[in-house]
Amino acid sequence: MDARIVGWGHTPFGRLDDTLEELITKAAREALEHAGVEARDVDAIYLGHYNGGLVPDGFAASLALQVDDDLRFTPATRVENACASGSAAVYQGRNAIRAGVAKTVLVIGVEKMTAKDTKGVTEALMTASYQAEEGGVSFPQVFGRFANAYFQKYGNQSEALAHIAAKNHANAIKNPLAQMQKDVGFEFCNTVSERNPLVAAPLRLTDCSLISDGAAALVMVSDDMAQGFERAVRFRAGVQVNDFLPMSRRDLLKFEGPALAFARAYEEAGVSVGDLDFAEVHDCFTIAELLVYEAMGLTAQGQGARAVSDGVVYADGATPVNLSGGLKAKGHPVGATGVSMHAMTAAQVTGEAGLMQKSGAELGCVFNMGGSGVANYCSILDAEKTT
Amino acid sequence: MDARIVGWGHTPFGRLDDTLEELITKAAREALEHAGVEARDVDAIYLGHYNGGLVPDGFAASLALQVDDDLRFTPATRVENACASGSAAVYQGRNAIRAGVAKTVLVIGVEKMTAKDTKGVTEALMTASYQAEEGGVSFPQVFGRFANAYFQKYGNQSEALAHIAAKNHANAIKNPLAQMQKDVGFEFCNTVSERNPLVAAPLRLTDCSLISDGAAALVMVSDDMAQGFERAVRFRAGVQVNDFLPMSRRDLLKFEGPALAFARAYEEAGVSVGDLDFAEVHDCFTIAELLVYEAMGLTAQGQGARAVSDGVVYADGATPVNLSGGLKAKGHPVGATGVSMHAMTAAQVTGEAGLMQKSGAELGCVFNMGGSGVANYCSILDAEKTT
Repeated sequence: MDARIVGWGHTPFGRLDDTLEELITKAAREALEHAGVEARDVDAIYLGHYNGGLVPDGFAASLALQVDDDLRFTPATRVENACASGSAAVYQGRNAIRAGVAKTVLVIGVEKMTAKDTKGVTEALMTASYQAEEGGVSFPQVFGRFANAYFQKYGNQSEALAHIAAKNHANAIKNPLAQMQKDVGFEFCNTVSERNPLVAAPLRLTDCSLISDGAAALVMVSDDMAQGFERAVRFRAGVQVNDFLPMSRRDLLKFEGPALAFARAYEEAGVSVGDLDFAEVHDCFTIAELLVYEAMGLTAQGQGARAVSDGVVYADGATPVNLSGGLKAKGHPVGATGVSMHAMTAAQVTGEAGLMQKSGAELGCVFNMGGSGVANYCSILDAEKTT
Repeated sequence: MDARIVGWGHTPFGRLDDTLEELITKAAREALEHAGVEARDVDAIYLGHYNGGLVPDGFAASLALQVDDDLRFTPATRVENACASGSAAVYQGRNAIRAGVAKTVLVIGVEKMTAKDTKGVTEALMTASYQAEEGGVSFPQVFGRFANAYFQKYGNQSEALAHIAAKNHANAIKNPLAQMQKDVGFEFCNTVSERNPLVAAPLRLTDCSLISDGAAALVMVSDDMAQGFERAVRFRAGVQVNDFLPMSRRDLLKFEGPALAFARAYEEAGVSVGDLDFAEVHDCFTIAELLVYEAMGLTAQGQGARAVSDGVVYADGATPVNLSGGLKAKGHPVGATGVSMHAMTAAQVTGEAGLMQKSGAELGCVFNMGGSGVANYCSILDAEKTT
């Protein structure tokens, strides 16, 4: 028995008026409607949500029961793995189905970040580092350290990073749910200026993902029920790998945990990187996307920039990365991100991605990450033919 | 395939010098040793942890990898359901085994509460209420409302509540890990005094559980491996029921979600309340234990006090409740509590409960609750004969 994704919902990402509860409700109702599932048929709910002090709602799982009166008495559980909390919820939902304890599962990812000012958000996210050694180090600074280590060994990659930012912004123009639907251009991203300052050298503002509100949701059912649904997206692989939290215990030149997650996922699915039609990967910072190119095997170590210069990862390349605009331009409401990635990927493989659609896309990859390569989730999805 | 509990660990509960990481490490290492399991054989880790601002560690799942170098790359996930976060971790760990994605699972529950002063703890726990309607209402006040509603309908139960407090304190004398190993006596609990003030009328200080640091851990394996272990505790039932978060949507005269959880657990196990040899239940406030007597069917609605006056729930009664001392006297490090309850219950059914041991105890019940009957977990455990 395994889970199939049969529907999804997705609020716009951005600075929204909605409360946490309203975001949950909008995404969940849309997912249930898209799947054609009634709330009373939901056996379990999993909520991916980071919080970290961003909102005062400290017990969010049962907030999901506010979606529909018929959800009363449904088991609801919050899961958290920093910026991979959304995928954590997807994976626990899948486990519930594989365990035979649920036939129909509602997965919701949500974050409300703009209730705080930028400093408050930076502080809330900072708690996802190893406090004993890295207390007070912001996430731009964490990834700035990765970038510095990489630049020192392999040379300055600022241009490649600017190309990554520009690519994801260009892609987001075709995503009506993206926070920034604006082609900012390579030159702007590549130039330090008043409007594009260094945030944590060598990372510029355009190297950083956005601060966002938003929610995404999935409905999953057990595969023996899949025939009854309009679509049924299959997990060809789903691999979770956690790494040590302290940066001092990890190699800053490469993403070891992510690389292992990809390798295991390819093995589980019986595919190689060349078989992927596209990937949605965790570009919390452009240096992260570059390191993911290497972790996923698109290039050798130290040569991530080639994925951009060769054009492989562009929308018209062999393996487009972040057709949705990624965290960079779609936005990054941290608890929602992993669920959004699974929804965007499911939409591609079922041909429902609208303007973002890659023609003939059949096999897609999700890579969602908590911290700097600490909680790593790699899924490979395809669409099973049903009715 | 199902999970068996093959070992456990448990720090003392109380005001401890240990950090969150040290608490995790102590309980986890003890559990691995008790089970006779090597860290390298652990397939997945689940961490039950509330946090809510109590400590700055916002990404605690991967802290569990600090327990042993061999845990590197092991999937680790934090789960949260307020004061039932520990049981949430137990249930997700069990799901991972039932899903066939893990053979050996390490479950840890942990909380560090004394890093804050009492006001800070009260505020951190307050976020587990429905903020839109109950923001600023403390948990003693929440349960004070339940007590007031109950007293208004069924008469003043202050004496019964004092008997519950005194019972749990008396039981804790036999628990070397309990925070308060002191028989405070019925008279003290029943008298409002300078040392036992009203915290939220009609609840007195002795009607409230303790503010605690602590951790507990379990090792679970799939049942096909159970023969190789010294002990293997079986889930005869494991039921989760969530209820609406807002108090305005629930009946304050009874615990509806908990009652449903018990009813389903009895059905799943094929037992009735009379078959239970003992129970560890969620006495965050004495009024909660009284309402649980009714939810579990020890008495009819409105007659919970009879369970005390008839002596049923005392250590020498037919169905002893909280032989460990309960949250009231053992302590209540919120994320640890559910794991601790499962560990204490497992110890009883395997005859390893030391001075707390009820002679011949074979079938035990755990009831762990997040909020005021919102996230409800009911487990029924017995010991499978192995070697």
